[in-house]
Amino acid sequence: MTYEGLEQYLSEEVSAGAAPQGLKDFLEEEHAADLAQFLEEYPVGAIWRALELLPLERQAAVFGYFPVDVQVGMAEVARRSQLPAIMSEMDSDDRADLFNNLSDEQRETLLPALSSAEREDIRRLAGHAEGTAGALMTSDYASLSPEITAAEALEKLRQEAPDKETIYRAYVINESRKLVGSVRLQQIILAQPREKISEIMETNTHAVMLDESQEEVARQISKYDILALPVVDNEHRLVGIVTYDDALDVLEDEATEDFHKAATIGKLDQGVSDASVFLLYQKRVYWLVILVFGNILSGAGLVYFEDTLLRFISLAFFLPLLMGSAGNAGSQSATLIIRALATGDIETGDWFKMLMKELFVAFLLGFTLAVVVSGLGVFKDGLEIALVVGMTMVSVIIFGSLLGVSMPFVLKRFGFDPATASGPLITSISDFVGVVIYFSIAAMVLL
Amino acid sequence: MTYEGLEQYLSEEVSAGAAPQGLKDFLEEEHAADLAQFLEEYPVGAIWRALELLPLERQAAVFGYFPVDVQVGMAEVARRSQLPAIMSEMDSDDRADLFNNLSDEQRETLLPALSSAEREDIRRLAGHAEGTAGALMTSDYASLSPEITAAEALEKLRQEAPDKETIYRAYVINESRKLVGSVRLQQIILAQPREKISEIMETNTHAVMLDESQEEVARQISKYDILALPVVDNEHRLVGIVTYDDALDVLEDEATEDFHKAATIGKLDQGVSDASVFLLYQKRVYWLVILVFGNILSGAGLVYFEDTLLRFISLAFFLPLLMGSAGNAGSQSATLIIRALATGDIETGDWFKMLMKELFVAFLLGFTLAVVVSGLGVFKDGLEIALVVGMTMVSVIIFGSLLGVSMPFVLKRFGFDPATASGPLITSISDFVGVVIYFSIAAMVLL
Repeated sequence: MTYEGLEQYLSEEVSAGAAPQGLKDFLEEEHAADLAQFLEEYPVGAIWRALELLPLERQAAVFGYFPVDVQVGMAEVARRSQLPAIMSEMDSDDRADLFNNLSDEQRETLLPALSSAEREDIRRLAGHAEGTAGALMTSDYASLSPEITAAEALEKLRQEAPDKETIYRAYVINESRKLVGSVRLQQIILAQPREKISEIMETNTHAVMLDESQEEVARQISKYDILALPVVDNEHRLVGIVTYDDALDVLEDEATEDFHKAATIGKLDQGVSDASVFLLYQKRVYWLVILVFGNILSGAGLVYFEDTLLRFISLAFFLPLLMGSAGNAGSQSATLIIRALATGDIETGDWFKMLMKELFVAFLLGFTLAVVVSGLGVFKDGLEIALVVGMTMVSVIIFGSLLGVSMPFVLKRFGFDPATASGPLITSISDFVGVVIYFSIAAMVLL
Repeated sequence: MTYEGLEQYLSEEVSAGAAPQGLKDFLEEEHAADLAQFLEEYPVGAIWRALELLPLERQAAVFGYFPVDVQVGMAEVARRSQLPAIMSEMDSDDRADLFNNLSDEQRETLLPALSSAEREDIRRLAGHAEGTAGALMTSDYASLSPEITAAEALEKLRQEAPDKETIYRAYVINESRKLVGSVRLQQIILAQPREKISEIMETNTHAVMLDESQEEVARQISKYDILALPVVDNEHRLVGIVTYDDALDVLEDEATEDFHKAATIGKLDQGVSDASVFLLYQKRVYWLVILVFGNILSGAGLVYFEDTLLRFISLAFFLPLLMGSAGNAGSQSATLIIRALATGDIETGDWFKMLMKELFVAFLLGFTLAVVVSGLGVFKDGLEIALVVGMTMVSVIIFGSLLGVSMPFVLKRFGFDPATASGPLITSISDFVGVVIYFSIAAMVLL
């Protein structure tokens, strides 16, 4: 049995009872992530019909892999008892996420059907600002007291294992819930049964505050190669953990957002395949209009130098390649800086070092391109034009590159996202400055 | 004691024996990743002096966090026995990486100093092509026979734990080393001691082939939220595992590479903070020169329509904003497609669906921008010019957007990297086509 069998089941209106055993076996064996990926294209009613062929725990696993908008759609048509049952089985961070996205009405019908522990857990997790460690964390961590023995700890973990996201590392908290250390499962297994946890635990456990940004949390998980990072409140009390799989997702999403921003596309909360035409329009039109006004400056520059242009119309030939090169070099340097700031390769304090380095690189690039276009200029319009375009090229490449390096630092310094220094923005600015430089040099040399 | 103490120790030429105990304690407590980050800025001799304050195992941990070029530099000045001792303690994948980067001479002095098992391990791991699962995997995985009991398995894992990257999941292989399943440590702990591994193992264990690309490996680890992915050869024999921390690094590096490519920067194997001026020049000049020749086309277009331009010089005012908008819209759509292909949000087969969607989005964008610039045109130069720039705007936005959507698909179809469809390349092409469209429409309406 394969996905074709599932497709057939969903297309016919047979009841769940009549589903062939082969299909159920297939659904049982297949990875929940794959099932979710296949099913999310179907209408929510059909998705429920497929899920109902699975035991509750598996239903929750598949449900957890759906994007939040699919989950919310499914919640709207779920039978009365279906949603609370699945939510009880979900990982606590996914559950809180879904809860944040439900309507007030849905929340009101849902809450009484959950246990009081679940309600309390949702309340604790759902209240944190999006994009922080608090919003990303789960409460399904294993904790131990420093006073118990290795044997007692192992027994406790054994009992708790099914409910925890990971028991590979347990966090050690004292009687006031303060984080005092952590201990790996294999350390407990290897220890003498009567050894105390306080004797075998590691005390230099990294932790982040509740309001730490999710990028920083993900970076730390990546840097220290750890499975999970504990989250503490102001009094260093343990309130949750962020696991590596969430860190992976955060890094991917952040990279996508920066990518889009670098091409002047606003933040998309869903993939481009699911986004509607109007949403894509909305996210793209904003900067396109702003840049039109930016480019008016270049147009005005051309009009200002109209006389020079009319007198030496051969200058027009070199206009696109001079403007283009400045923008291209500027986009390159802005991209290098934006990405290096995002990955932590450089810090805000490195701006002077990077600026100096860029000065050398830009000079080499400008000189190389100047040789290319001057050759072209001599061949096409003689020595004077060659001199003008060569000098212009060196100047605009240096201007564009220094602009590209500086702008992300300046934006960051004033609290903006450095990725706002997009290629098109850099290009618009250096186009305008390029026009002014080009015709100023031309006027100087040719008139 | 803090990093200042370490700085002072490194600046004075005191012997390791004279290092204060406080410094040693500090080094012992600090995370290896932090120490490596601090030390990598120092000359290789100084790094060795700091490492020698640590026990061998910790030396290897810190050493493992250095970038490969620092490791190679350190290897060059290491004392005879130092390198083999550290390499014996390193994770097998990091060790093979370093070995791949050593000179032939260094390899020859190194090999006899390693144990035969280590030599064999390096030989197995170091032979795989860069960028494949084989090059990324480690051989430090735990394996079990399906025939042994849970109690026997636990005892085996206990003994092996110190040498393995992860024992949280053990791989079950039969007598011919074929992968038949996997079992989590907590399943073994929870099982009856006399239950057989074959009874508790999961049989639908995902695995990848040796030559699978590292991006695909990382995507699967991210998709299935797993700690490690087993790697098998042609006969489905287990040869290694790739762990989630390597997947994190791969996804970060791939994103950086695509980022750079989108701004026409060649592949950098080191961070921009470490890269030399000349290396940065090399990686940037290539596309800048190619694009100069691309932009010559636009210049030639302007010269071709010289008469129209001279007669209606007011057209020059709108030139930068029309060309700019087409390039900007095209970069937006190319970026959306490139990133969606990279994250797996869309597949090659989705090109027609995406093209149709883009047609609608582009029409809306073109229409909006046309209204903006026509208004400007009426105000500045009257109705006829307004008509020309409005019609041109709709046409070039649609052309640029469709080019931006199609090019990544076409490149991928013919085996190139879709990210080669960079913003600047799209901009150059749509600039040229834009010039032709603009003056053709102008000639039609105005002459």
